[in-house]
Amino acid sequence: MDILINTEILISTLQNVISVIDKSYSKPILSNFMIKTLENEGGQGMVEFSATDYELSIIERIPAEITTSGSICINAKRVFDIAREFQAKETRILSTEQLWVHISCGASELRLPSVEVGLYPQPNIEELKQNLKISTVDLAQCIDMTLFASQTNEARRNLMGVALSITDEQKTRWQATDGHRLAQVIQPVEEMNFGEVPEIILPRKALMEIRKVCELMGEIVDITFDERVAQFSGNRIHFKTRLIEGKFPNCDPIIPKDNERKSTIHRENLIHSLRIVSAISTDKLRPVKLNLQSGLLKLESEKTEFGEASDEFEVNYDGEPFEIGFNTRYLLDVLNVMKSDEILMEFKSPMSPSVIRDPNNDIFLSVLMPLRTEW
Amino acid sequence: MDILINTEILISTLQNVISVIDKSYSKPILSNFMIKTLENEGGQGMVEFSATDYELSIIERIPAEITTSGSICINAKRVFDIAREFQAKETRILSTEQLWVHISCGASELRLPSVEVGLYPQPNIEELKQNLKISTVDLAQCIDMTLFASQTNEARRNLMGVALSITDEQKTRWQATDGHRLAQVIQPVEEMNFGEVPEIILPRKALMEIRKVCELMGEIVDITFDERVAQFSGNRIHFKTRLIEGKFPNCDPIIPKDNERKSTIHRENLIHSLRIVSAISTDKLRPVKLNLQSGLLKLESEKTEFGEASDEFEVNYDGEPFEIGFNTRYLLDVLNVMKSDEILMEFKSPMSPSVIRDPNNDIFLSVLMPLRTEW
Repeated sequence: MDILINTEILISTLQNVISVIDKSYSKPILSNFMIKTLENEGGQGMVEFSATDYELSIIERIPAEITTSGSICINAKRVFDIAREFQAKETRILSTEQLWVHISCGASELRLPSVEVGLYPQPNIEELKQNLKISTVDLAQCIDMTLFASQTNEARRNLMGVALSITDEQKTRWQATDGHRLAQVIQPVEEMNFGEVPEIILPRKALMEIRKVCELMGEIVDITFDERVAQFSGNRIHFKTRLIEGKFPNCDPIIPKDNERKSTIHRENLIHSLRIVSAISTDKLRPVKLNLQSGLLKLESEKTEFGEASDEFEVNYDGEPFEIGFNTRYLLDVLNVMKSDEILMEFKSPMSPSVIRDPNNDIFLSVLMPLRTEW
Repeated sequence: MDILINTEILISTLQNVISVIDKSYSKPILSNFMIKTLENEGGQGMVEFSATDYELSIIERIPAEITTSGSICINAKRVFDIAREFQAKETRILSTEQLWVHISCGASELRLPSVEVGLYPQPNIEELKQNLKISTVDLAQCIDMTLFASQTNEARRNLMGVALSITDEQKTRWQATDGHRLAQVIQPVEEMNFGEVPEIILPRKALMEIRKVCELMGEIVDITFDERVAQFSGNRIHFKTRLIEGKFPNCDPIIPKDNERKSTIHRENLIHSLRIVSAISTDKLRPVKLNLQSGLLKLESEKTEFGEASDEFEVNYDGEPFEIGFNTRYLLDVLNVMKSDEILMEFKSPMSPSVIRDPNNDIFLSVLMPLRTEW
């Protein structure tokens, strides 16, 4: 292989590739990535960079001047550390038969060992029947507004991601839950065909990595999938992820339909108050009691040996006095991903799930189980 | 105690206090800090915030409206976490006889437990004979340009800081060394009186904390000291640190006087090249060979199983060809604290110490021991 690549494109591509590389080093082969030359497309040489950690793969195709075609497999972090210091406009990558790779840029010359290409679990893009097209902005929002509610530990693997399915109104539904809370976005998309796969569960890690680089994926992301894998393609970047096996629970029965006590609350005020009141708590989830009175929200901590705290501020509420407990962390998680000035909270009883909505954007809702307060 | 403090001043003061709090929690009492009221100064109430980790103390005096005088000792991190969320302009801090402290700001009300004041090793500012006044900008530079060369491990405690002494020309000398390198700044100051204490060794931690907040210390910092402690005072902030006991080695004989091979080198170019050439090394100190030829500097890595690397760029040099090895990390440390576009390197032989200077500012120099290269 003998190729010439624009150095800036090389660096940004390596930066994306690095995100998929296995940081645990438990399998040394996964610290490498691949470069291979593609057939010329209309006279424009193209090379493909790819990396995988078995679960998640990235494949990125970039223009290059190809003198000799071929492929190499080489340590990702080392090449990235070197390339990001390069000053000259173009970088040459040349491989020899003895598995040495020569990299040069301006006067910089490096000779690095590489790995037999056949040893690397090289990812490929598949033709998959099911697909949907979503704007990158909407995709970012769907991830941000749901991922926080997914399960982070392995106790229930089917909850360690976001379920993507289709509603009766032909919109996409994005749902995540950890059993204590649920987040849901109902997002209309440009085009979709769920065919024989009505629901898939996208793993956390894949969504986190896609979210990080989705600004580089152009205006529209094309998602293709079957019952095993999903591929996210936009611009020159392709992510491919294994799906989580198993069934996602039916969350519709959990979403309250008749929560009649409603209050509109200034989001930032609530965040500050929660942080103040929860600061004295040593419990990880930091319980808090919300006390609604006409036009006023009062927050109270538990009384412990570490002290007690209360705060209050004006809100829009004209129902009867009402008290309910929550885990502060769960409340802050949803408040922190919302962007609206005000939030709408809907309650029924101190023992039944509450709903948090954006009053100006009805595609999102979050359900939160209350906490029994004993103070 | 019953006091009213401007909330913004409270938050910024707590932020400084927190920096001194012992993060290891090995001595629980040191997770607290103190507030005490001072005598009114011309009608303006003042309170003193202080914290110590036994080695380093901070004392900060801020205005407050004092209703009842007194003092409290309370958990620093908890109070900081709470106060930084406060929205209202003023914060009231009130203590009761049962060691409860009430903190309120706007509608936020907290009750926190406190600690018996007598249990806390309360720091105090002393009248010390020796002193010097230095501009804050110069102090920051003296710390930045020397601290990197100090010893970080406990093998030789007397090298774990910066030695401050006086030159024959009545300037201050700041020196640090770890045995492999030396950094020195000769800084004229506004006023000084070293009296009976010709040299003190300022510990790393103190200098790091002082450096972080020295922008808040006004234009001039007043340093007072004896043979045990040094105090840095500026604006309303006072740091007090124990000095390192022991004798700092006489470094004058190490500073080469007759290094005749000189090269002026573009600093950023050298940084990029060092990072490229050292990237293939797995050795922590990453050896590199510099090869000077007429008008050209060539860098070469060792050849290992991980590859080899070289780079070159134009420099100002008109001597005979010359080769010398260094640890890349030591070179980068000094290059990264320098600010000049060009650096001046002075060599004698591949086995004798080299000097790095700023060609436009002769107050600074660094001495670097070479590394025997066997390639």
